[in-house]
Amino acid sequence: MKEFKSLLSYDKARKLVIDNAKEFGSEVIDLADSLDRVLSEDIVSTMDSPPFDRSAMDGFAIQARDTFSISDGSYVTLKVIDSVTAGKVSDKEVTSGTAIEIMTGAMMPRGSDSVLMQEFSERDGENVKIYKKIFPYLNVSRQGEDIRKGETILKKGAVISPEHMSLLKSQCIEKIPVKKIPRISIIVTGDELVDKIEDNENGKTIDSNSIMLLALAKRAMCKVTYQTRVNDNKEEIEKAISNAKKVSDIILITGGSSFGKKDLIPKIIDNMLFHGVTIKPGKPIGFSVDEVPIFIMSGYPVASFVQFYLFVIPYLESALGARILNYVDLPFSEDISSEVGRFEFVRCKIADGGIFPIRLFGSGIISSLSNSTGYVLIDEKSEGINKGEKIRFYYYI
Amino acid sequence: MKEFKSLLSYDKARKLVIDNAKEFGSEVIDLADSLDRVLSEDIVSTMDSPPFDRSAMDGFAIQARDTFSISDGSYVTLKVIDSVTAGKVSDKEVTSGTAIEIMTGAMMPRGSDSVLMQEFSERDGENVKIYKKIFPYLNVSRQGEDIRKGETILKKGAVISPEHMSLLKSQCIEKIPVKKIPRISIIVTGDELVDKIEDNENGKTIDSNSIMLLALAKRAMCKVTYQTRVNDNKEEIEKAISNAKKVSDIILITGGSSFGKKDLIPKIIDNMLFHGVTIKPGKPIGFSVDEVPIFIMSGYPVASFVQFYLFVIPYLESALGARILNYVDLPFSEDISSEVGRFEFVRCKIADGGIFPIRLFGSGIISSLSNSTGYVLIDEKSEGINKGEKIRFYYYI
Repeated sequence: MKEFKSLLSYDKARKLVIDNAKEFGSEVIDLADSLDRVLSEDIVSTMDSPPFDRSAMDGFAIQARDTFSISDGSYVTLKVIDSVTAGKVSDKEVTSGTAIEIMTGAMMPRGSDSVLMQEFSERDGENVKIYKKIFPYLNVSRQGEDIRKGETILKKGAVISPEHMSLLKSQCIEKIPVKKIPRISIIVTGDELVDKIEDNENGKTIDSNSIMLLALAKRAMCKVTYQTRVNDNKEEIEKAISNAKKVSDIILITGGSSFGKKDLIPKIIDNMLFHGVTIKPGKPIGFSVDEVPIFIMSGYPVASFVQFYLFVIPYLESALGARILNYVDLPFSEDISSEVGRFEFVRCKIADGGIFPIRLFGSGIISSLSNSTGYVLIDEKSEGINKGEKIRFYYYI
Repeated sequence: MKEFKSLLSYDKARKLVIDNAKEFGSEVIDLADSLDRVLSEDIVSTMDSPPFDRSAMDGFAIQARDTFSISDGSYVTLKVIDSVTAGKVSDKEVTSGTAIEIMTGAMMPRGSDSVLMQEFSERDGENVKIYKKIFPYLNVSRQGEDIRKGETILKKGAVISPEHMSLLKSQCIEKIPVKKIPRISIIVTGDELVDKIEDNENGKTIDSNSIMLLALAKRAMCKVTYQTRVNDNKEEIEKAISNAKKVSDIILITGGSSFGKKDLIPKIIDNMLFHGVTIKPGKPIGFSVDEVPIFIMSGYPVASFVQFYLFVIPYLESALGARILNYVDLPFSEDISSEVGRFEFVRCKIADGGIFPIRLFGSGIISSLSNSTGYVLIDEKSEGINKGEKIRFYYYI
């Protein structure tokens, strides 16, 4: 039997993945459908925002200098010549001695430069008594104060959020260029895999990888275009790969990635860029580019989970030009040792402002994933993490 | 004109919202459809995991005591009586002096207690030479070592993740009880609102609230069952509310929430539990429960965004029994002052391990939302945050 002759370091393997990432194409879609899509070009504002000076309060649009003579207890009287609500435009002009009643959001009438809040006024028939000295532009949202026409308001690579949608909509932008949704195929292999364990099927293992990888792909902004489970059979696997190639940008194959008797994948895919990486868990990972990039992953759920984060996500981030992973730097809560020469993925959770490791390291231990909310990485060169050391915590997607 | 007579403190308003939250109902769905759904009952494991002792390596299943005599350079020879791969069960029994070739994931044969990795063996026809002393259960994944039958493996309130799906699937759990998806109606009001600003429509404002609230509702695990925009017209608004009540668990109404001339909502909904809260931005927020909870929100996008986070999400979290918001405690990067008596929502982002405020506080300034990735809250009693002070950063959903 063959073994992994020489394991590649994670950094080198990751670089090979990224260097072979092929940028996904773009398409123009409706803003309304753009939540969670990746912007493929910078967006420049089409107009000032607000598009005109408008009132930020309910009150009276006046000329501020009419109030300059007011001192405590005194007032001036202005003539109310019109009333304007949001969405309407007054055809009157405010001159010295006059005021226009105005509602929040309404366009400032010609001649006016400020809005006196209604609580500092008293209406008196056709007139209004003004009790407060104000300065020009008080309570006015100035044209362009939020955004100037021609500014870059969103950068290529942004993942569209509700806030972005509001921003773009406020700019009358109805169509935006985004990266096409990556199409992933998932092929799970293994004679031992079943969907249910019946009492008479001892020795079988439930396939929990298919459902997990499908969900991970969705969370990583992809769509799964082909998914199948096949036996450890050369023809079946080859046929599945051939089907997958037709409809996907990325293929994931799990199971049989090692060099055991039944580990057929390395025999079927012989032009791997690497096979076997110094990571724990998840060592038997392979990567090949044959028209389509193929990730050859473990059958163990935890190992394939780790491989998804350490290899598939970097590929996607590179090909999309976007950040999928979210992280935060926090102090580690205890001393933890790690073997030099091995790149470790440590399942963790955040509590009390620090990072706590989940103490179960088997690659079959799926419960440890469910108890963790993210991970930290320990470099091959490192002997571990010291208590209190600041380290990057990556959230699960 | 009326004013907010007395503003309610945020804590009291929040408590009223939570106290009036009506727990959403449950339904049983397929595990395959459960991503991002909220578990409505604890889940107890149905079986041990792994369900039987299985090999964690490719090698030979043996009795460990057969190796105890081995010292450096020496070996023992065992007779290979069978070969077993994952998913298969050997009908042979390992006795002293014999071995069964075994692949990763295969069930341990009767009589064997450990697996010798193939790299410490040499095959010799019907025999195998064993070069390493091993102890019982080495390279064996023990039955139940991950999960014991009858354990609580997931708690009510968990939001189903890819990891959870794998865990549940590995337990043969195909259907799970989840909270029903909350149904939200969004009614946007305002004569001034349009979808596009044409040159001849000066004074109009683009409705960017509708698209934003729809997206926020989706991110908050809800579905929008009714959405409309109406003019500042009593009949239109009443009709929209009546339509919304028929199809929703929660109604959001934006615009006209203040006491201006055109602010009709407080006249239509007269039994508000509160109206006006000491928050900045977002002060003119109202809440009523008339069959269905109704949130009366601002027309300004930033204000309604803040109100969504400060009121709608707490309602949902309470009615779902789940956490929607994610947060982390980090040091604040600078001194920031706040007015006592006002509860502030400060838009921020994380950089260099600290929290940085985004310095734009207008409630119309939508660009400040797009530059921030979350927020911190400053209590009414606080005069601000000191540089270096640890404070809770809430991520946008």
